[in-house]
Amino acid sequence: MFDRGRRGKKILNREFIQKLEGISGVENVKTSTASRLSYSYDATAGFQSMPDLIISPRNTSEVSQIVKSCNEQDVPIVPRGSGTNLAAGTTPTNGGVVILFNNMDQVVELDEENLTLTVEPGVLTETVHGYVENRGLFYPPDPSSGKISTIGGNISENSGGLRGLKYGVTKDYVLALEAVLPNGDIIYTGGKLAKDVAGYDLKSLLIGSEGTLAIVTQATLKLIPKPPSKQTMVVIYKSMEEAAEAVSAILANRIIPATLEFMDQETIRVVEDYKQIGLPTDCEALLLIEQDGPEAVVANDIEKINEICQRFGAVSITRAANEQEAESLRRARKDALSCLAQLTPTTILEDATVPRSEIATMVRAITETAEKYNVRIQTFGHAGDGNLHPTCVTDERNKEEIKRVEEAFAEIFQIAVDLGGTITGEHGVGEMKSSYLEWKIGREGIELMKSIKKAIDPNNIMNPGKMFAKSTKKRVVVSR
Amino acid sequence: MFDRGRRGKKILNREFIQKLEGISGVENVKTSTASRLSYSYDATAGFQSMPDLIISPRNTSEVSQIVKSCNEQDVPIVPRGSGTNLAAGTTPTNGGVVILFNNMDQVVELDEENLTLTVEPGVLTETVHGYVENRGLFYPPDPSSGKISTIGGNISENSGGLRGLKYGVTKDYVLALEAVLPNGDIIYTGGKLAKDVAGYDLKSLLIGSEGTLAIVTQATLKLIPKPPSKQTMVVIYKSMEEAAEAVSAILANRIIPATLEFMDQETIRVVEDYKQIGLPTDCEALLLIEQDGPEAVVANDIEKINEICQRFGAVSITRAANEQEAESLRRARKDALSCLAQLTPTTILEDATVPRSEIATMVRAITETAEKYNVRIQTFGHAGDGNLHPTCVTDERNKEEIKRVEEAFAEIFQIAVDLGGTITGEHGVGEMKSSYLEWKIGREGIELMKSIKKAIDPNNIMNPGKMFAKSTKKRVVVSR
Repeated sequence: MFDRGRRGKKILNREFIQKLEGISGVENVKTSTASRLSYSYDATAGFQSMPDLIISPRNTSEVSQIVKSCNEQDVPIVPRGSGTNLAAGTTPTNGGVVILFNNMDQVVELDEENLTLTVEPGVLTETVHGYVENRGLFYPPDPSSGKISTIGGNISENSGGLRGLKYGVTKDYVLALEAVLPNGDIIYTGGKLAKDVAGYDLKSLLIGSEGTLAIVTQATLKLIPKPPSKQTMVVIYKSMEEAAEAVSAILANRIIPATLEFMDQETIRVVEDYKQIGLPTDCEALLLIEQDGPEAVVANDIEKINEICQRFGAVSITRAANEQEAESLRRARKDALSCLAQLTPTTILEDATVPRSEIATMVRAITETAEKYNVRIQTFGHAGDGNLHPTCVTDERNKEEIKRVEEAFAEIFQIAVDLGGTITGEHGVGEMKSSYLEWKIGREGIELMKSIKKAIDPNNIMNPGKMFAKSTKKRVVVSR
Repeated sequence: MFDRGRRGKKILNREFIQKLEGISGVENVKTSTASRLSYSYDATAGFQSMPDLIISPRNTSEVSQIVKSCNEQDVPIVPRGSGTNLAAGTTPTNGGVVILFNNMDQVVELDEENLTLTVEPGVLTETVHGYVENRGLFYPPDPSSGKISTIGGNISENSGGLRGLKYGVTKDYVLALEAVLPNGDIIYTGGKLAKDVAGYDLKSLLIGSEGTLAIVTQATLKLIPKPPSKQTMVVIYKSMEEAAEAVSAILANRIIPATLEFMDQETIRVVEDYKQIGLPTDCEALLLIEQDGPEAVVANDIEKINEICQRFGAVSITRAANEQEAESLRRARKDALSCLAQLTPTTILEDATVPRSEIATMVRAITETAEKYNVRIQTFGHAGDGNLHPTCVTDERNKEEIKRVEEAFAEIFQIAVDLGGTITGEHGVGEMKSSYLEWKIGREGIELMKSIKKAIDPNNIMNPGKMFAKSTKKRVVVSR
């Protein structure tokens, strides 16, 4: 299937390209160097690999034909949404065909009686939010990339977001999937059903499988009534421990806030440097807390949260009087990544996750690890669900520093796992974290996952080079 | 591994039995006819098959050794909780070893900070409810068999219950699993984590896999704060359609009740016959509606529900003034099955499930199908989530009638699937519904599931004869 190219690299042969053009139309197949370059990387620093061809099928049948053709000829396939992946999950590691969903981006059906929305995979997350909220409904999963990410990408990665603690993640809102298997078979799993136990849960197996098992071609999402009101506050603490204790106390008091976000001192400093919004740079922690629901419940919860935050020594508590003020409070947290990204040429955003009881321990450990390896790591993230985003500002051209960054992150993953956490809470394993996966799930877990992969995709055409590494990184002894 | 027995039936040889006795102790291994008879059936009528041996391991390591021994000798394994299965999921279809969890029935840890409860598989569902509710916490899944069912059984079947619509099912409350694979490997999947995307979702794959892939040996459950208040009402309708319209209208008004249960006219009649509690036997539908949550929210929701129920022509609305009255209102619905069971020697309880918008259509179709085949089928169930329990009162010794019952249920499954529903909402496929599974998931879905089963359990020792049938029932043309 591959001819030798002029520069010694294998490229798809003309016959195969024509076959794909025949399936989706010449206008939907691209092989120019410019096009291939555009899809050679995603949002992950330090990973790039050229695909051979980019194709934009117009419907499920075309996806099936493309996959079947690739499977017959062992051509790798990389399904790709908007490429916002942060773990090199959408880089064409082994070349091959990138499948885009820009021609499959329609809302198919809103079912107000069953509270479901059926969409094609190319629909933007933000489009779904706007579409349903205009009708008094709510689709809770809100990955930070939601303005440009697609629902297909969210499903492949089981995306989380700021509302995970109270509302759950993408998986909790997918009721049914249509998907194409590596052999071209089209399967339908789930339904507009609150309960369905007909066989294995294929739907959950595909969600978060990072394009390594099948290609999602349609999804039916669960909607819930839109919460009628919302309140927002920002709380500042001198010490990390006080902030962590306040977070624990809020939850121990049986209050589950809609948002419970955290920024460490380094992040506060950088945001204040760039935005000059009056953040206290001598404080170790900022919490952004929001509650939504019926007005009386929200008022009551926010009052209790206020009292708890004071009890644990808050330096300041700012409550938004209206949506405009709320948005300006959210700003600091929302701007964290973009401010950090301005510091240096390369930003590496990680998502080590721990049980929420371990947040203070984990944040301290991250700071100490950064010092140990002499790298700059700031931490912000979702305090309520223990999903932290230690973020390293570095320069990928500085090989020596990058080596230290990698060592620091390896140690951070190891500490997270030792605390009962995971190497990735919402970003996925991709190519980047594949050599750490065994630390979380063990050799037995890896073997089990590989056996499933092999059973479903015997020719390993689906996003090869992701999730499973050739070898597992050795764990070092962490002295703490 | 099998010797020929005296009556020509294969039995386990002495050496193998001694090996198992060596693992779990002589006192935890039973091979007497009385013991084997006790575990030859579950709650499903018409299915019985003798196991060869019953064993009660005391810990995960013993489970692993037992499974490994069975795998080496191709001996079937049937893991069993309390045997309340309604789809012949726990009958030893191919004989072999029944594994009980009466020695693994401890609450391991309540983690109040992370709101989790870790338990062994033999813990009763009711024990979990009591344990956490005494501490102001809540474990929502509430299968009707909860008084005697085990958490291990609930996980194997992904059990639902009355609170499914608002709170979800077992799968939504399992955070982590320890499980033994057919090769004896012990795996750990998930964690005390709201977010974890490290590889394939093995946890969801095992939940609801009916003991065909692995044996759950420990589970960490997610708890939520206990709702502070609850209100209960019973609403009677002359016609099914009015009741169904009221249900739709409640949900369309963005109210998600904690309970939204339904009984049809036949069920009302039977309950009234036995209990004489003044139910109007000339009415087609009874709805049991409950809402829980903060007091103000509950009061407001119940007021709105009351108004909606009246608007759609309720004959009567009875609201409980206190918990005692609430319990007596719940009585009618709770007694439905036991009243029906007194009518005839055999009760077959099914769980065809449809999108909730199709409930009225489905209930009518069930009634018509029962008439067509001249069998007695009453329907009650969970109106809010479309999970219906058409229940046939019959006599399994009457072969001719049982044939008609089977034909009627086949037609009911077919109609459910045609309406976008499923052949089983919460009971599982087991042996009983295996020949209908393809109707829901297609040939492609069956092939995919079989390939997963084969990859994980190549010797087919785990609960063989379940889920996958030798052949699929032919679909007949339903004239409606």
